[in-house]
Amino acid sequence: MTYCVGMLLDAGMIFASDSRTNAGVDNIARFSKMKVYHQDGDRTIVVMSAGNLSVTQNALSILELRERNALVPTLFNAISMFDIATILGESLRDVRRRDGPAFAAGNIDASASFIVGGQIQGERPRLFLVYSEGNFIEATGDTPYFQIGEIKYGKPILDRVVKRHTPLVDAAKCTLVSFDSTMRSNLSVGMPIDLLMYETDSYAIKLQKRIEDNDEYFQMIHNTWGDGLREVFRRLPDPTWV
Amino acid sequence: MTYCVGMLLDAGMIFASDSRTNAGVDNIARFSKMKVYHQDGDRTIVVMSAGNLSVTQNALSILELRERNALVPTLFNAISMFDIATILGESLRDVRRRDGPAFAAGNIDASASFIVGGQIQGERPRLFLVYSEGNFIEATGDTPYFQIGEIKYGKPILDRVVKRHTPLVDAAKCTLVSFDSTMRSNLSVGMPIDLLMYETDSYAIKLQKRIEDNDEYFQMIHNTWGDGLREVFRRLPDPTWV
Repeated sequence: MTYCVGMLLDAGMIFASDSRTNAGVDNIARFSKMKVYHQDGDRTIVVMSAGNLSVTQNALSILELRERNALVPTLFNAISMFDIATILGESLRDVRRRDGPAFAAGNIDASASFIVGGQIQGERPRLFLVYSEGNFIEATGDTPYFQIGEIKYGKPILDRVVKRHTPLVDAAKCTLVSFDSTMRSNLSVGMPIDLLMYETDSYAIKLQKRIEDNDEYFQMIHNTWGDGLREVFRRLPDPTWV
Repeated sequence: MTYCVGMLLDAGMIFASDSRTNAGVDNIARFSKMKVYHQDGDRTIVVMSAGNLSVTQNALSILELRERNALVPTLFNAISMFDIATILGESLRDVRRRDGPAFAAGNIDASASFIVGGQIQGERPRLFLVYSEGNFIEATGDTPYFQIGEIKYGKPILDRVVKRHTPLVDAAKCTLVSFDSTMRSNLSVGMPIDLLMYETDSYAIKLQKRIEDNDEYFQMIHNTWGDGLREVFRRLPDPTWV
């Protein structure tokens, strides 16, 4: 499994992904699910992937090879994030067309999805969710974040805290709480967490950090959050009807 | 969808179920998912169901008609909760055998599951989860609760709070928090909540209550819990690495 969150806020963007992949519970490995395509002062593009690892890796390779294969636009000359989402969806469709019959014959789940976001000079920051079929949707003010993979355990806290005007630091903190809840309940989502913060109109990466198992801040979040929840629970009045 | 929780604690048992069923988002109805079979001083048996409503209703009807059909044991003469889980699984298999081919032809999901628990004179209280195939597992000290239906949103708080030695009132409160989180995130789980509390060795129903939309205590839980979570979040220190 996988857990990735992308947020589009007034102040900027947050991207976070776990690093566990598994082919059955007896075959677990560590793969980063975040790729960054960056040109200082011109564009910052972040892609995070979930689903069949061969499909997502192949789609990204095909995306990166567009320049060599004389296809336009490419990651580095597209003038809109909309075009980036489009060519990512196309690359995904290429892989599924090529590998689909073999997957079907082997009864293998070929589904895959991406969160892709960032900012290209001349545009506002934009965030997209690319579905398994290559179609995609864009984040709006009503829904400032997307999740892929194991989305349910970590969703309630995002819904309660993250709004379009939430400061970047609070959003990053909330993202880590969301990851903590997810990893507590689903063993197939695992450390390290790749975290990237982008400030609107900076065309520079504010922070790119790999948070490992022994990260002190994450450990503090883990303990403080659990204790805090139990304290809120203890303070709830007892029902009068018992 | 559905959300049901059953708990087996030292002090007794908690059963809770929502009341929403839907055939598509444009066809929503209200059905209780809890059935109680009780004989004062002899037995208290509670069954909660999730999945295809025709399958679960039919399985329960077949279970209830065992006496008329001269089958043994029945709900009211079985001497062990193990037998109750067995005949519930058998009833479920009967329905799936009868309706399975028609479901398959219509490409309809016929899956269904039950939580069944209670106490029969001469036995300790026991709790079972009956799967779609009619097989079942029993709750032990390590895992004092079962969920069926939309289980993920409401699981983290149960994991953090409920242990075998948790008092009944705290367990009931935690169950309501778990329902609140679930209903906040999944519209197909809806009020009212049927709640039943049973005290070990009482062979009597301690509390059976239908919690409606306008229930003051549930409204208080809903507000206090959300505010409390946001407060715990606000108190988390900011990361040092931003």
